[in-house]
Amino acid sequence: MTDERSTEEEAPAAPQKLSRRGLLGLAGAGVVGLGVGVAGDRGAMAASGSMTAGGSTAGNTAYPFHGTHQSGIVTPAQDRLHFASFDMSSTASRADLIELLQDWSAAAALMCQGKPVGEFGAVDGPYDAPPEDTGEALDLPTGGLTITFGFGPTLFVDASGADRFGIASQQPAELRELPHFPADDLDPQKTGGDLCIQACSEDPQIAVHAIRNLSRIAFGRASLRWSQLGFGRTSSTSTSQVTPRNLFGFKDGTANIKAEQLGKVMNSVWVPASATPAWLAGGSYLVARRIRMTIETWDRTALSEQERIIGRTKGNGAPLSGGTEFTAPDFAVLGRADKALIDKDSHVRLAHPESNAGTEILRRGYNFVDGNDNLGRLEAGLFFISYQRSPAQFIDIQMNLAKNDLMNEYIRHVGSGLFAVPPGARQGSYVGAGLFA
Amino acid sequence: MTDERSTEEEAPAAPQKLSRRGLLGLAGAGVVGLGVGVAGDRGAMAASGSMTAGGSTAGNTAYPFHGTHQSGIVTPAQDRLHFASFDMSSTASRADLIELLQDWSAAAALMCQGKPVGEFGAVDGPYDAPPEDTGEALDLPTGGLTITFGFGPTLFVDASGADRFGIASQQPAELRELPHFPADDLDPQKTGGDLCIQACSEDPQIAVHAIRNLSRIAFGRASLRWSQLGFGRTSSTSTSQVTPRNLFGFKDGTANIKAEQLGKVMNSVWVPASATPAWLAGGSYLVARRIRMTIETWDRTALSEQERIIGRTKGNGAPLSGGTEFTAPDFAVLGRADKALIDKDSHVRLAHPESNAGTEILRRGYNFVDGNDNLGRLEAGLFFISYQRSPAQFIDIQMNLAKNDLMNEYIRHVGSGLFAVPPGARQGSYVGAGLFA
Ligand code: HEM
Ligand code: HEM
Repeated sequence: MTDERSTEEEAPAAPQKLSRRGLLGLAGAGVVGLGVGVAGDRGAMAASGSMTAGGSTAGNTAYPFHGTHQSGIVTPAQDRLHFASFDMSSTASRADLIELLQDWSAAAALMCQGKPVGEFGAVDGPYDAPPEDTGEALDLPTGGLTITFGFGPTLFVDASGADRFGIASQQPAELRELPHFPADDLDPQKTGGDLCIQACSEDPQIAVHAIRNLSRIAFGRASLRWSQLGFGRTSSTSTSQVTPRNLFGFKDGTANIKAEQLGKVMNSVWVPASATPAWLAGGSYLVARRIRMTIETWDRTALSEQERIIGRTKGNGAPLSGGTEFTAPDFAVLGRADKALIDKDSHVRLAHPESNAGTEILRRGYNFVDGNDNLGRLEAGLFFISYQRSPAQFIDIQMNLAKNDLMNEYIRHVGSGLFAVPPGARQGSYVGAGLFA
Repeated sequence: MTDERSTEEEAPAAPQKLSRRGLLGLAGAGVVGLGVGVAGDRGAMAASGSMTAGGSTAGNTAYPFHGTHQSGIVTPAQDRLHFASFDMSSTASRADLIELLQDWSAAAALMCQGKPVGEFGAVDGPYDAPPEDTGEALDLPTGGLTITFGFGPTLFVDASGADRFGIASQQPAELRELPHFPADDLDPQKTGGDLCIQACSEDPQIAVHAIRNLSRIAFGRASLRWSQLGFGRTSSTSTSQVTPRNLFGFKDGTANIKAEQLGKVMNSVWVPASATPAWLAGGSYLVARRIRMTIETWDRTALSEQERIIGRTKGNGAPLSGGTEFTAPDFAVLGRADKALIDKDSHVRLAHPESNAGTEILRRGYNFVDGNDNLGRLEAGLFFISYQRSPAQFIDIQMNLAKNDLMNEYIRHVGSGLFAVPPGARQGSYVGAGLFA
């Protein structure tokens, strides 16, 4: 079935096969050394079957894995997330890292087309070997899956100062652990990581399937450090999308950068061609923050106070200075007793470009609820994700918020990650190839 | 806005108002003593806006809250779950319990119609009081929400033997803690509870919103004991549904009871009219089991072994005795060396009515992934839910499985609950009313 590759636009010379190690991860001690092929095409199966295949309400949108930029950044935010952070194994070599990125890229390209990973899929394989694909997404549509890879600071230089993979000289000056922000309460088990993968889809089962199979492929080379499921995207990243609501019940994503705003995307999201190191040009920086929201306290707060904290109305999301959702906030408008209608310590005012020397970021976060804590409070919050051409953009805004945001009484940052997101892989190449050129 | 009630089929005399306590839960120390009304109609808002409101891919299906049986049992399984178990507060009285069930019923009826809870919704309320509804589902469609309530054994007689609510004499003889099954490894923090709520929807945000607001309403009377999110229903409960896959990658729900099989539903799911106590007639028993699946080990198992364990093929789910997905398994067919084609210890053989004196149950479980454990393994599994007219049905099958199922090597039961599910509430009445008649 290796001729399946001919369905790709160019038949590439470079690796589209899973390495022996990758196959070992997939298949245990079973079949190894075979190229990646396809046992079935999920999209086609779903189309011929039913859109509600597997109960999914997801559709057959497919985003390309290869391209100038990685998908999953300016892609219209899908509704579900599985985010995972990985650490390289202590015995892994530079060659292992390269091979892993090649394997991950090959597998991600297949999954984004709705295909299972591995030549034998989950059902057509040699009967005496483990199936290569785990199978739970077999009858599901493509579901708008995107898989986005990032590199943490510790991939370049580890905690002991070692240059494990011979890439220390390629570490971007800005790719350093984020500074400590006031009131940060970070759990090391939800923070950091050598590598990250953001899998987004309209169906959680498709996102979970992606992370699960990529974890298996990493076998012996990298392992899961932490992971997070999210639902209900809290940002629009496209003008085609209705603004969703976060767990405070407010519209979230109104003033976000939208994919259609090409100038803003160019100036704020993508690392410019002139950047050093060159391998990151066309890439971005991903910041992840696991933010607990004490929703029980929030829910006991007056509507007026909730709106004062945000700086917008809860109903239609208009700024408190007037207008409708997309009216620009006017921080100068005064109300009773000459107090600004939009409080000077409101979230929107402090996060707004006017308060941050024009700085903007692309937000792409998700709500989460992970059961409840021992006091019977929902373990709920926002898994904040933002993309920016420089970590300084996030740092400046967050410093401003961490110091003065009225919202701080109701939130707690408990996890964190900073990752350099390489540009997209060219057909026949792999994500991060430029780093090893 | 109390005339909103006139849109219901009958304008009932009985309580459709939230009690003072319920409003306190919603509104903190704010407005109290007002009837439940409606600030906006989510369904209508979504319809006039966009089906992708809030990023939701859910539609505007609405299931009735009132009726002969509770919804969420034979309702075609929606794709997302938020399940919650509650304990009554140690100071709660019989009157408090009744009031809570009235409040929960009133709020559930509103939410199933896509309406916010409370008179003032989340956005139209008195400005100096907390909004009654938390707001995160405001622009979402109805999304097929069902809310199903159940009563645990401890509601009738608590651990110390006390009849806290004067209902000990009404405890069904079969509503006792489930027996210990071989290899049970139950976490008390994920087990039991005085009350349970199963909220299912096509959109997790709608299910989460329901549990969150019902928890608030319970304020001072009951509090969350444990809760679980699930995705990717693992059962079809209707012939109109395609069989989904569980995290072992197999089709799950093939041989399930389907809503259309009226005879089976009558004989296996609903407690008969002749039952004692009478208040449970038309109800059911809900069993919940949180089952960890060690998917990493499973994934290293040969396809042949995986299929032997289940007793069906991974591809199309046909029994190993031949045919296609819905062919009846034939346990007598022998293969090589006179061994049965379907292993005698396979899951399907042991769970099949033939091995259980004809016993059947209605399965309605969900996949879950709750991040990962400290060893980097996905904390994944099946949140098994079944409905049956008698707990003995589940107990018999599970005893059979716990002893011999080949699958046991790959699963671990870590949480458990048994609840009596009262019949549906009549218009104007509340869930469980018969218990206090
Ligand atoms: C749980 C935590 C947070 C919540 C609930 C939250 C909520 C909101 C809401 C409701 C808005 C107004 C609607 C909109 O324009 O999207 C907003 C705006 C914004 N937020 Fe947050 N946010 C949180 C954390 C953060 C963090 C950590 C950052 C970055 C450090 C951030 C940056 C922004 C920015 C840049 C805007 C747009 C401001 C403007 O230009 O008007 N937010 N947020
Ligand atoms: C993680 C745990 C479990 C997994 C992965 C699992 C998976 C499956 C699969 C793949 C099937 C075959 C397809 C179908 O007919 O639905 C099946 C059937 C069945 N399972 Fe399970 N199951 C699990 C736990 C349980 C438990 C705890 C019970 C009840 C005690 C149960 C009862 C049944 C029944 C009654 C059938 C139908 C058997 C027949 O009539 O053919 N399962 N299960």
